[in-house]
Amino acid sequence: MNSFKYTNPTDIRFGVDLLDEQLHDAVAQYGQNVLLAYGGGSIKKSGLYDRVIKALAGLNVVELSGIEPNPKIASVREGQKLVKENKIDVILAVGGGSVIDASKVIGSAAFYEGDPWDLVIKPSIRQTIAQLPLVDILTLAATGTENNFGSVISNPETHQKLGTYGPNRPAVSFLDPSLTTSVSKWQTAAGSIDIFSHLTEQYFDRSNNTINEGLIEGIYRTVIKFGPIAVAKPEDLEARAQLMWASTVALNGLVGLGNQNGWTVHPIEHELSAYYDITHGVGLGILTPRWLKKVYADPSTHDKFVKFAKHVWGLNGADDEIAQQAIQATYDWVKSLDVPTTLPGVEITDDVNFDEMAASAVKVGSLEQHGYVPLNQADVRALLVASMTTEGFEN
Amino acid sequence: MNSFKYTNPTDIRFGVDLLDEQLHDAVAQYGQNVLLAYGGGSIKKSGLYDRVIKALAGLNVVELSGIEPNPKIASVREGQKLVKENKIDVILAVGGGSVIDASKVIGSAAFYEGDPWDLVIKPSIRQTIAQLPLVDILTLAATGTENNFGSVISNPETHQKLGTYGPNRPAVSFLDPSLTTSVSKWQTAAGSIDIFSHLTEQYFDRSNNTINEGLIEGIYRTVIKFGPIAVAKPEDLEARAQLMWASTVALNGLVGLGNQNGWTVHPIEHELSAYYDITHGVGLGILTPRWLKKVYADPSTHDKFVKFAKHVWGLNGADDEIAQQAIQATYDWVKSLDVPTTLPGVEITDDVNFDEMAASAVKVGSLEQHGYVPLNQADVRALLVASMTTEGFEN
Repeated sequence: MNSFKYTNPTDIRFGVDLLDEQLHDAVAQYGQNVLLAYGGGSIKKSGLYDRVIKALAGLNVVELSGIEPNPKIASVREGQKLVKENKIDVILAVGGGSVIDASKVIGSAAFYEGDPWDLVIKPSIRQTIAQLPLVDILTLAATGTENNFGSVISNPETHQKLGTYGPNRPAVSFLDPSLTTSVSKWQTAAGSIDIFSHLTEQYFDRSNNTINEGLIEGIYRTVIKFGPIAVAKPEDLEARAQLMWASTVALNGLVGLGNQNGWTVHPIEHELSAYYDITHGVGLGILTPRWLKKVYADPSTHDKFVKFAKHVWGLNGADDEIAQQAIQATYDWVKSLDVPTTLPGVEITDDVNFDEMAASAVKVGSLEQHGYVPLNQADVRALLVASMTTEGFEN
Repeated sequence: MNSFKYTNPTDIRFGVDLLDEQLHDAVAQYGQNVLLAYGGGSIKKSGLYDRVIKALAGLNVVELSGIEPNPKIASVREGQKLVKENKIDVILAVGGGSVIDASKVIGSAAFYEGDPWDLVIKPSIRQTIAQLPLVDILTLAATGTENNFGSVISNPETHQKLGTYGPNRPAVSFLDPSLTTSVSKWQTAAGSIDIFSHLTEQYFDRSNNTINEGLIEGIYRTVIKFGPIAVAKPEDLEARAQLMWASTVALNGLVGLGNQNGWTVHPIEHELSAYYDITHGVGLGILTPRWLKKVYADPSTHDKFVKFAKHVWGLNGADDEIAQQAIQATYDWVKSLDVPTTLPGVEITDDVNFDEMAASAVKVGSLEQHGYVPLNQADVRALLVASMTTEGFEN
């Protein structure tokens, strides 16, 4: 096992309808001036907005709305202006990963004089400045942002979609699965695949930490089971609860402690989203089975694939056979969530940007240096090309 | 899934030889006056004591030594006196569960005017008073105390061994697996069984949270694999590392979030230790297989046992068959650790105290109200009697 340092002070409040009683104090402990950040109108339609406003009675609330999926730097700039003008003490983010991600960077931008895009391209700046405390109410199980340091911010002008890390996790996270029963089938599927991908990025690691592996296998089985249930029956509260907690533990750092390899599929998908603004999780679902097939070509991965087959997919049989079956099972699971399984399915119909995207993914993700199986530009391009058809997965 | 609240701010430093560079600042951040608590002479023999003293150079160090296994209230009383007399700012506990457990209660006793035994029998008092920050250096993988709120303190005069919970987890925990390579085979075995038992107490729960189950199964497999390796090859650093991290995640609250049943085997074992001062983990190893057999008699547990058999022990076959095999495998695993598997093996040769012990366990553990399978005094007595022989486990 490798060395690591870990501390996770986020105050997690998991359960249905806790926020009406607990939200006020959870926010007010940090001050009176609150930036309420959210996305489109869905929280108004669902009634959540009214509940939040009621709970915040007595506090000074300034609103930042319209934070989009794949959150744009423009929203962060707008937030920076608001937090400075209004001497904001605490940010309350109500929404999915996009709203929370943007709010984290706004929390740093409150203490930065320059353009917040600097904080995305040079996240090290954020480690040297303060960050406003963040309370969040999660409305989509997917990214794990509710309990980690990370954000992903897009800059449409430069075709960049980049990860950035601040010094603090959210201070308080309300995880109420009943808020996710209205999430669309599409977003539910995408969120489930995102969770699956976070597990995959950490499971396929050369450190071979058996505790990490075991923890991940348990979360894998949960998302494999409950993702399709939530897509089929959006109102199934148990499935929603399992997915919500899965999203949190899959990416709060715990299950990758001491890992030594970097991530591969996420950097590649970020290129897809940056160029074509497709749904992140759907892009991951297209890429992941092809990536598994690619890395399985390296025999040094075979032991891991056998564990993946046995402990995640419950397969028994000859090693090579069950490994191949597990890769196919991953493809079939994505397909069972009723999302496209090829790039043309998300309207990416030619390879005109593939060279540029592959070069960027290799560079941004350090894929040649830190990949579980190192990938170069040609490898990534081949993965993208393989994602154009169902070859190898459909007869 | 049930609701829960979870926050775990302990600053964990996992790895070999981190303490020489990091210990000073980790302690000094809380003040200059340090109570250094430890057990017998083993940390002097191993050289750890000298390393600690060197790292603490410049701080005012007061020592409390001689904290025994199954830590006694006398040590807490002595610590209370020392922290008050010396205006202690922070406690540094160097040792296994006993030293850390006692130090937590001393941390509360610093702010209490009465006898600290009050804090054990009425832990609610501790929630209303402060607690000194605790830094620990763990030297035995077992109890999980390095990352939780709990302590178990014994009072030999009253034959009581009771759990008590404070408001705070340790502030900083140094988890250095190389410090455990000198742990005896006996203590290594007992620690491994203690971890196994913590998992069992949380796995057999009616909440049936699949994430908890999966996480626990991963830790189970780790301790099942590496416990015997560490007993056979005490110097195996990888086994020591796996067991150390297993001990932490098995009992930091994470894997039992939202659980609804209380613990059963621990309260019964605490009676054994309180009456006979036997090693806690060895007592658990004797009781656990009998308890598994007892609860399996209730058909409502069978689904769980099938998961236990498949996911923990890797068994395949007919449900009832593999469930029985899993119970036997648990017994065989304990035996493979080279510790006694019956009460006479730890010199408990008659049943003279069994009625009293059973009554106390049922009461202290609320076994009739909150047990996974409720147990009354007669049930517990029968478990103790069954633990007198190898019947049912050896042909």
